[in-house]
Amino acid sequence: MSEAFDLSNNNPLLSLYARNASILVFKMFGVAALTGKIRHSKKKFANIEDAKAIKGAQVDTADEDVERVRRAHLNDLENIPPFLCISFLYILTDPEPKLARNLFLGFTAARICHTLVYAVKPVRQPARGLCYGVGLAITCYMATKVIKHFW
Amino acid sequence: MSEAFDLSNNNPLLSLYARNASILVFKMFGVAALTGKIRHSKKKFANIEDAKAIKGAQVDTADEDVERVRRAHLNDLENIPPFLCISFLYILTDPEPKLARNLFLGFTAARICHTLVYAVKPVRQPARGLCYGVGLAITCYMATKVIKHFW
Amino acid sequence: MSEAFDLSNNNPLLSLYARNASILVFKMFGVAALTGKIRHSKKKFANIEDAKAIKGAQVDTADEDVERVRRAHLNDLENIPPFLCISFLYILTDPEPKLARNLFLGFTAARICHTLVYAVKPVRQPARGLCYGVGLAITCYMATKVIKHFW
Repeated sequence: MSEAFDLSNNNPLLSLYARNASILVFKMFGVAALTGKIRHSKKKFANIEDAKAIKGAQVDTADEDVERVRRAHLNDLENIPPFLCISFLYILTDPEPKLARNLFLGFTAARICHTLVYAVKPVRQPARGLCYGVGLAITCYMATKVIKHFW
Repeated sequence: MSEAFDLSNNNPLLSLYARNASILVFKMFGVAALTGKIRHSKKKFANIEDAKAIKGAQVDTADEDVERVRRAHLNDLENIPPFLCISFLYILTDPEPKLARNLFLGFTAARICHTLVYAVKPVRQPARGLCYGVGLAITCYMATKVIKHFW
Repeated sequence: MSEAFDLSNNNPLLSLYARNASILVFKMFGVAALTGKIRHSKKKFANIEDAKAIKGAQVDTADEDVERVRRAHLNDLENIPPFLCISFLYILTDPEPKLARNLFLGFTAARICHTLVYAVKPVRQPARGLCYGVGLAITCYMATKVIKHFW
């Protein structure tokens, strides 16, 4: 690469990155909203000041429905920030655009499905394992390419 | 944008981003320090090797004062890394500088207040909900702008 | 700095960053793999659909061996994403290359050792505290430099 990397929306790869990053952040916030919705419908909260603010609510940090959504959220935290960093470095490696597009869309789709089968409507395994594995494999592939390119 | 994006401190928006990112990271580390401080003052630790290192300490992973600070920290992890990514993309969208400045300072102030009313001195709702909501709304606004700009 | 920051692999500092970021992400995924390995060997899972998929497995979210690895992973989430953001901003401050190299390698080494003495083979304190402290000090040093440079 002799030309400077273009940090504007004239750069299709950067645009792809920006759109996917934003969608993934919205997806993560959706999981937070789902936690809140279940807490309100079951009237079970983690903090005493939350329970006090709602009539009939109580403090309960062991409700399985809430904990399931929180585990889904934690899994997002373990996988999405690493992707956001690695995929930005990946677009600096001048990848084949079609491949990059498939990897980005694949990761985003896998993480949305992960949330659906984990937090929204539990589905029997290997549904969640597959979604998790696809996202993980894509980030690992990109990280390998990044290491090779920047060695 | 026909000019290249300036990644130096001559760029006021990048400088704004860099300062806010650093302050937010220091704030998060402050929550970690607070957890450690409470663990030491109550002599309640999560690991056996920590308890062994301090006379009279025990393993206890259910202390409410410690867990409250850890929930505040987890909420940071759910909100601050997404902001760090989205707000960087946002400054690439050539935003109105005054608006960008208000959004960045608003987010940072909201998250500092969130820590104060959650972990430092519990305040009754809607104090924490408001702080959380302001930060969330700012990140969502920026992510919407990013999607539109890079579509 | 009058020249534009080079986002290619001709930039030794960016290359250093990219390699370290990738290695840290692989390390974090290794902790996730370790959690899975222990869950399978002890047949203790967090979700009912996971337990159902394996003969003789049960739901158990309080196994100390699993929880220890999950605490190590959470500590990574609290420290590595902040480093990934701050260290990128740090290389924009035109640091002395040798110092930058030592800081990056020091952080990566400290976090790998942190995982070893926390999740792989528990070692008595202050082993883990030292690893944690070195990583924290390096990120704080860089964040201070970033604030000064971009003030």
